[in-house]
Amino acid sequence: MKLATIRLADRRTAAVRADGDHLVELGRPDVGAVLAAPDGLAAAATADGPRHPLAGADFAPVVPHPGKVVCVGLNYRNHIQEMGRDLPEHPTLFSKFADTLIGDGDAIRRPAETEQFDWEAELALVIGREVRRADEDTAAAAIAGFTVLNDITCRDWQFRTREWLQGKNWDSSTPVGPFLVTADETGVRPALDIRCEVDGRLMQSDNTGDLLFDPVELVRYVSTMVRLRPGDLIATGTPGGVGHARTPAVFLKGGETVVTEIRGIGRLENRVVAEGA
Amino acid sequence: MKLATIRLADRRTAAVRADGDHLVELGRPDVGAVLAAPDGLAAAATADGPRHPLAGADFAPVVPHPGKVVCVGLNYRNHIQEMGRDLPEHPTLFSKFADTLIGDGDAIRRPAETEQFDWEAELALVIGREVRRADEDTAAAAIAGFTVLNDITCRDWQFRTREWLQGKNWDSSTPVGPFLVTADETGVRPALDIRCEVDGRLMQSDNTGDLLFDPVELVRYVSTMVRLRPGDLIATGTPGGVGHARTPAVFLKGGETVVTEIRGIGRLENRVVAEGA
Repeated sequence: MKLATIRLADRRTAAVRADGDHLVELGRPDVGAVLAAPDGLAAAATADGPRHPLAGADFAPVVPHPGKVVCVGLNYRNHIQEMGRDLPEHPTLFSKFADTLIGDGDAIRRPAETEQFDWEAELALVIGREVRRADEDTAAAAIAGFTVLNDITCRDWQFRTREWLQGKNWDSSTPVGPFLVTADETGVRPALDIRCEVDGRLMQSDNTGDLLFDPVELVRYVSTMVRLRPGDLIATGTPGGVGHARTPAVFLKGGETVVTEIRGIGRLENRVVAEGA
Repeated sequence: MKLATIRLADRRTAAVRADGDHLVELGRPDVGAVLAAPDGLAAAATADGPRHPLAGADFAPVVPHPGKVVCVGLNYRNHIQEMGRDLPEHPTLFSKFADTLIGDGDAIRRPAETEQFDWEAELALVIGREVRRADEDTAAAAIAGFTVLNDITCRDWQFRTREWLQGKNWDSSTPVGPFLVTADETGVRPALDIRCEVDGRLMQSDNTGDLLFDPVELVRYVSTMVRLRPGDLIATGTPGGVGHARTPAVFLKGGETVVTEIRGIGRLENRVVAEGA
């Protein structure tokens, strides 16, 4: 199943993709609410609500208000090397606030305060069940499915201090969606081509099977410390090819189109809009 | 005004302290809901709901589900020195998830996975109005008031990787409350004695007037990047005297009583309970 949160003229609604090119309403305000309902996913499989054409749909963040957006910093070998780090023994974790999230097609707001606005294409997993201290089987069962995320980053702010949070938490900067693809279609350790293009130029290209810490391991690890709940997101890290690590470095100025795509999961297309310009 | 979120037999409610030793219900489920309502604080000033004795009240986290808990890492000179760092040019920021929060009197859950469970008494500010890119006046006006927080930390996990998040985000580890004291009583840059005691031994003692980055500056700085909303918390950092920096180091094992107090704001008393023990 492919689930989305879409904006209609008067409201927002969760929907399921049907017949290839339609979206069927699920009677809940967003995918987070579908996941939080005990029978949410089961009901989605037989949904029979109002239908909307997929073409021209206005996508909100697939989960608009996750309780947690946990991000993994260094999780592909080539990105770890380009950032000048050693292979880690443990996942490096930071977080994003829900106010950073935008939908497919929304403007990526480029703050006037940064000179180093960069991309990071990522596979994100979506939690479907509450878990704490999950073992491997419980962790796998807690993954509702996967979506696409671009962890847009202000590098100058990321490196102002030792902690990355302030480079990673700019309002309306982080596309996520358009679909949650349920794990029955992908497996819980998907090996899929991931890419990021800026104005048609291929910047990142890798395969999600190359993750050092795979989705199941990340759920197990994070749930050791904190309860994960339906709708929580874990962004699994970005491969090599970010603008900061290029020679010469390349950054987003405004006006570019960023395409973030994982084959079989989804494709985000977002235009960068310079604030105050 | 002193506002709290208290647990009753069948529900949770926001309340205001009245006549010294009573709590008057405010007809909203928690202090976050009071702050989110346009007339919430004004209505609290003339509240006339059911009354409960202060003695024996069961306090929830003062804001149980803040959208953001922003934490400041290094903000008192003596703590910066004891952690071996230089004075920073910018605030160091990380965050906590709402699932970490507990109330006054609740057990601090000491995970079996840590050997270095430490305290960090902090002044926390509570946002009362939505702000983005606040100037100094707007930042000051956005501060609803202050509360007390203890940023309990697993040092071994904090230093597993470069990012501190995983040392700071253990479920049910972070006391916050018992009261939100509104800024009309404290000013927006309070200079108040702050202390932390473990089993009656004074571990931290400082004054919140010694913050390098004061509450107004922190609201201004954080709102540069992300929208702050009513109920969001900013924990302003801890003074010297943490267990990790002592010679020899001292850590919480379980069974201790931790008192976190800021004169005029509030006093948290929480027992450390070792999980799995």
